[in-house]
Parts: sequence; structure tokens; C-alpha cells
Amino acid sequence: MTIQNQAEIISIGTEILMGEITDTNANYLVTQLRLLGVEAGRITAAGDDRTQLTEVFRQALARTDLIIATGGLGPTDDDLTRECLAEALGEPLTLNDQLEEELRAYFMRTHREMPLNNLRQAMLIPSGKGIPNPRGTAPGWWVEKDGKIIVLIPGPPREMLPMWQNEIKPRLEKKFAGRIVLTRTLKVYGLGEAKVNEMIAPFFQLANPTLGIYAKPDGIHLRLIARGPEAAGLIGVTERQIREILHNNIWGQDEETLPGIIGKLLGERGLKLAIFDDGTRGIISSLLSQVEGSATYYSGGLMTTTDEVKITMGISSTLLAKHAAVSAEVAEAMAAVVQKEFRADIGLSITGIGGLDDEKSTSGECYIGIVDAQGIVNYQQKLLPHRDNMRNLAAIAALFRLRQRLLEG
Amino acid sequence: MTIQNQAEIISIGTEILMGEITDTNANYLVTQLRLLGVEAGRITAAGDDRTQLTEVFRQALARTDLIIATGGLGPTDDDLTRECLAEALGEPLTLNDQLEEELRAYFMRTHREMPLNNLRQAMLIPSGKGIPNPRGTAPGWWVEKDGKIIVLIPGPPREMLPMWQNEIKPRLEKKFAGRIVLTRTLKVYGLGEAKVNEMIAPFFQLANPTLGIYAKPDGIHLRLIARGPEAAGLIGVTERQIREILHNNIWGQDEETLPGIIGKLLGERGLKLAIFDDGTRGIISSLLSQVEGSATYYSGGLMTTTDEVKITMGISSTLLAKHAAVSAEVAEAMAAVVQKEFRADIGLSITGIGGLDDEKSTSGECYIGIVDAQGIVNYQQKLLPHRDNMRNLAAIAALFRLRQRLLEG
Repeated sequence: MTIQNQAEIISIGTEILMGEITDTNANYLVTQLRLLGVEAGRITAAGDDRTQLTEVFRQALARTDLIIATGGLGPTDDDLTRECLAEALGEPLTLNDQLEEELRAYFMRTHREMPLNNLRQAMLIPSGKGIPNPRGTAPGWWVEKDGKIIVLIPGPPREMLPMWQNEIKPRLEKKFAGRIVLTRTLKVYGLGEAKVNEMIAPFFQLANPTLGIYAKPDGIHLRLIARGPEAAGLIGVTERQIREILHNNIWGQDEETLPGIIGKLLGERGLKLAIFDDGTRGIISSLLSQVEGSATYYSGGLMTTTDEVKITMGISSTLLAKHAAVSAEVAEAMAAVVQKEFRADIGLSITGIGGLDDEKSTSGECYIGIVDAQGIVNYQQKLLPHRDNMRNLAAIAALFRLRQRLLEG
Repeated sequence: MTIQNQAEIISIGTEILMGEITDTNANYLVTQLRLLGVEAGRITAAGDDRTQLTEVFRQALARTDLIIATGGLGPTDDDLTRECLAEALGEPLTLNDQLEEELRAYFMRTHREMPLNNLRQAMLIPSGKGIPNPRGTAPGWWVEKDGKIIVLIPGPPREMLPMWQNEIKPRLEKKFAGRIVLTRTLKVYGLGEAKVNEMIAPFFQLANPTLGIYAKPDGIHLRLIARGPEAAGLIGVTERQIREILHNNIWGQDEETLPGIIGKLLGERGLKLAIFDDGTRGIISSLLSQVEGSATYYSGGLMTTTDEVKITMGISSTLLAKHAAVSAEVAEAMAAVVQKEFRADIGLSITGIGGLDDEKSTSGECYIGIVDAQGIVNYQQKLLPHRDNMRNLAAIAALFRLRQRLLEG
């Protein structure tokens, strides 16, 4: 089948409009649709209001051939999704024997009596089919009419996700079988978005694969999406060309993360890491610890914000007096101290407390020190001042340098 | 002024429809509007497409008197929000001298040359006024026409949030001055959502104030919203009744955070805190450091995941052999060690590495130790196992206990 227009997502529930819950379904569904080669043209969140919701369906039906709607399929009087879609399509809503049977079986299985209200969930329209919901009482709806597909899915993610994966995605995959869609994400660090944009400008003009650029906490992400039977070849050629241009600034791809890559490198080599942190205040640690099994290679470390404690921990007071805490010399000394004290193979340090604590006065300067079997190095890192996420940026900088050093070693 | 209909939120950007970013602005804005006594009737996410976006504005203008739109105000050719609103309102878009001047001043201040494209951000329509944006190049728009208000705000939250708080919220407050709406959020720790629900069940039936309950990372939040001239009295009575029931489990209210409360208590008393962290892996540190000026009372600490390093840092090997790392005794010893080594007034520790690292095998048990001038205490903390945010929960538990101890002292 061909989708003439972009798909639309409708998220239903007054609780979304009240701010009581954040609509995470829509983001999940547009991402999933993209992997099927289908773009979304609009997301609408509407309340449990009969007039409004019917209008939302009517307008969407006039624009698109594929509507995915979640929510409003509960048993209570303010769950109006079924009624409103029926009205927008001009079809009668009647009790469906099979759905009623399945609903009664669900209540039997969960040893509960079925309130009369739940019968609302067994209602259906002539052009619709029920979609089984093993996790709840609300069946989904699969409607095909006049070349259009409308899918209704319960709103709670624990019901929505398995219904999408097990029932809806496979059906849509069959419908869109002709579309092969491949994606490749390249992750870049050390260059600003504008600079990356400029360096690979011509590739943004490509129609297949398309190229997108996104500023993320861990740097710039480039996403290639290729379609059609030649997708693998097309994406491969463009990826190679971009890699030649951005070279060492690309640190990972697809699902890779900096802490994950570092964990893999350390794990393979049986190396242990310790950190002396005066700059990110625990953020490097919490990032590294998000990787499962990180305790096997990450031994922990020291965190302090004062010269006094640094001296207690073994940093020379003469060195501190001569160079000040935010300096290449002190960063190197900190890396050496934590490597020794924590009996680690690699000591990583970051300075920058004075600067990074008070964003108004900072120059954004910090130093990263690394000690390993090859010796001791430091990197000066200039962060954009006046950013409220400077400590995060500093942590990413330290992780990037550590990865770089591990690859050199 | 009166809003005849519900307000509408429009979130603009193809990256939302591609699933590249989750739209968090809409949730923030509907919550904020509620505090002004304004309900939202619809949220629409639309892409950077001239025809579609103009249609979205036209339809919203036909339905509502208040539109808040975010995104699409950047300098590039695919930032079309200004053009589309101008077209929907039938007004010409022209370069505004004052906005241009402010834009040039922004680039001067940040020592950059202004690309010609940025002039797009100085365009305005006759019924619009610019809203200053100290955090970026895109001014907001405040448009009043035919009794309707349309506000345009840049999409990035770090620009959106201060513009909302400092510029837009105060103006809307003035417009809606007749509506008295008061809110009070009570923050609860140590009781599950179902338990809290049960304890204060009757209050959920109230019409004014209304009561909402929300599970948040730092515990359960209860939100009271009262309307009308009697709002202050109504909210006060209910708040007192709920406080009597939940008592010491309420740790804060409204904008208060655990790290903020702890910072205030430590700051007032001139006390310094150090942490020995074997459980949250840096998360306590990063939470405490989110408070401005935390370096004055938070001295840092030690983080380790192994017995070996604990022994190097001064924990007795006999103690470790006798009680194991995750024990009340070792938690107390860790608190004492870090208090001494970091010359702090208060030593806080948390154990639990074995359990918290491998979520499959854990019992969820951890211990929190606190040493202060009054002596040494420990708290056993049982966390729900198999939760993907156990380290966060452990950090909140440690902060809650520290607050409790500071209030007792």
C-alpha cells in the first residue's frame, strides 16, 4: 500500500491537557513509524470531549491515510474515543459478540466480576476489527475504510507497547513491505553544530539517504535514513564519505554511548579506572555507572572542591600555590594521586571548580589529566561559559579524552 | 480579560514529528496555564512546513483566544513560525528596527559576527511586539489582535523557561488578574502512592480545592489547587488537615527540593558535608551540586566500589570481614572516615554496591550512615528491587535521612 500523505498521531486524554501526564506515546509512535518508512505530519493531543475529539478525527481523516490514536478506550463515561471515531466515520457503534466473549474471559482469568460499564469496551463499528490486549480490558481497533487505516490503541504504555510490537507493527510492516528503511547515526564530538553543518553541507541536499543533524548532550548526532532496495549501498557510500571528512571527531554510532565504549575498552584490557573530580561533581561517575557491570572496571575516586582537601589527599601545596587549582599541572597531579590511592591502572582528573561553580564569573576553562602505563597527559578544555549544563559538558569532555587516550594506547 | 474558550498549545519542529526530541514544552506550558486558571483544549505538534503550519495557526485562531506556540524561531530557512503566523493573521512581516538593534547588540556582547540569516529573527508584524531573549538570538512575540492573544516562544527549554517565567507569565497574570488561583504542592517521602492515596482518600472528592497525586523521582507530590476569592482560606484548611495526617513524611512544599533544603540548613549553620558513596555512584553529589553555591558547604568525598580501596581509605579490614560492606557497621565507619579525611562537620555514607550494581540479584538493601557533632547513626533502607532507577532512589533516601538528622540536631 502507499501512504499518500504523512501519518498523524492523536493522543487522547484530558490528563495530558492538564499536564498531569507527559505524552510519551506520541514520541514512541513517530519513531516507530519512521522505521517503517512512514513520516508523521502532525501530533494532536485532545481531551475527553465529544465535540472536540470528533472534530479532531474528522480533520485528520481529511488530511491523511494513516491515523494512530492512543487513549480514551477505558470503560468509563469519559472514555469517548470509540464514539467519536464512529461518528467521524459515520458508522454505528454496536456490541460485538466476539469482543464481549474475550472481555468476559479476561475477567474470569483475573477472578473479577465484570462491571456493566466494561461492555463499552466490546463495542465496535462495521469496518473495524478488535486487536487483542493481553494486559488490560480495552481491545485496540484496526479500521480499514476507503483506503485509510485508523488504529486505536489503549493509552497506558504497558498496554500500548506490547500491542504495538506484537500486533500493529507486524500488520503495518506487511502493508509497507516495499519500503526498506535503514538508518545510521554517527556521533560527533569536539566540533560545534554550525561547524559540522558547514563541513558536510552538500550531504544535506541528498534525497536518499537523507541527513539530519541534532545537538545532543554528548555532542552532535548525524542521522542517515535510506529507503528502497538499494538502501544498504546508498547509506554505506554516504557514511564512508562523511567519516572521511569528520574522521576522529566521530566517536561512535547508533546505540553506542561514551560510557559504554569506555567500559568495553577497559573491560577488554582488564584495566581499572579511578577519577579525581573537581569539576563535574559526580556527573562523570554517574554516567560511567549507568553501564551494567561498571563496578568491574570503575573503582571510584575522589571528589573535592577545596585546595585544603586536595592537599590532605596528596596534592603538593607548593604546586597548588604556584599554578592554582585550575591548571594543567594540578590536573596531572590529581590524576596521579587518584591512580595511586585507588590502585587503579588509569587515573583521570578534571579541574574547574572555581569556574564551573559560578557560571557568571567563569571563563569556562578546565583541565583534564590522564595517567596510564604510557605516562601522563593533560588536555585544556574550553567550555562555552554561561551554559547551565557546563558540568555535563565537562563530564562529556573528560569521557571523550579518556576514550581518545585509550584508543591511542 | 476573559478567555472564552480553552487555550491551545502549538509545538513546532519537524524534529518532534521525527521522534528526535520529545516535546516537553507542551507539558510545562499546560501546567503553567493551569496555575493561571486557564485550561488547555488542544496541543498540536506540527512540522516546519509552510502550508501545514499556516493551517494549524488558522484553525487554532478560529477556536481559541489564547495560543502559546514554541519553536521554529531560529535563523534558518526552515524556521517558519513567524511567516506562518503572519500569513494566518493576514499581516505583513517586516524588519523591525528595535529588534535588529537588540540582535546586533547580542552578537556584539558574545563577540561574534552576525550572519545575515539572523536578520530573519528581527522580523515582526504590526500587531506584534518583541519579547526579549537574554539566552539566545530569537526574540519571542507577543501578539494581540481582535481580542486574541498569540505568544511565540523559542523552542529550546533553556530559552523558553526564563522567557515564560520573566516575561510571559507576569503579563498573562495581569490579564487574568480576576481569577484567583492558588496552588500548594506538598512533597512526601517514605510512603508509597497507594498508601498516601488511602490515607487522604476523602480529600480527592473536594471540588475546591482540588487534590492531585503524582509519583515523582523524589517521592509523592500532592497538589492542591483552589479558585475564587476564598482560595487562600480554602487551601489553608485542607493543607492543615493533610499535614496532620501525613505529618513527618512531608519534607517540603512548592519549589523546595531536598538538595535545596539541605543546602539551606548546612549554610545557615556553617556546616561542611562530605560523602562516602558506595551505592549511588556519584548521584548524591550531582544532586547536591545542582544547588547554586553548594561548594561552600559541600566539600566532596570518596567513591569506591571495592573493599580493597575502602581499606586503603581507612575502613578496618576486620570490620569488613566481620560485617561485609553492606552493613550498618561499615556504613557508620565510612561516614566517620570521610568526615575526618575531608575535615567536614558531617560525614554521610551510603553502602549497597553489591546489591545496587546487579539489579537482578539484589535484595534492594542498603545502609546510610551519618556522623555529626551529636554522634553517629545509621538507617537501614530497603529499596524496591528490580527498579531501573535504584541508584536514584538510594540517593533520595540518603538526602531524606540527612535532612531528618539535620532537623533533629
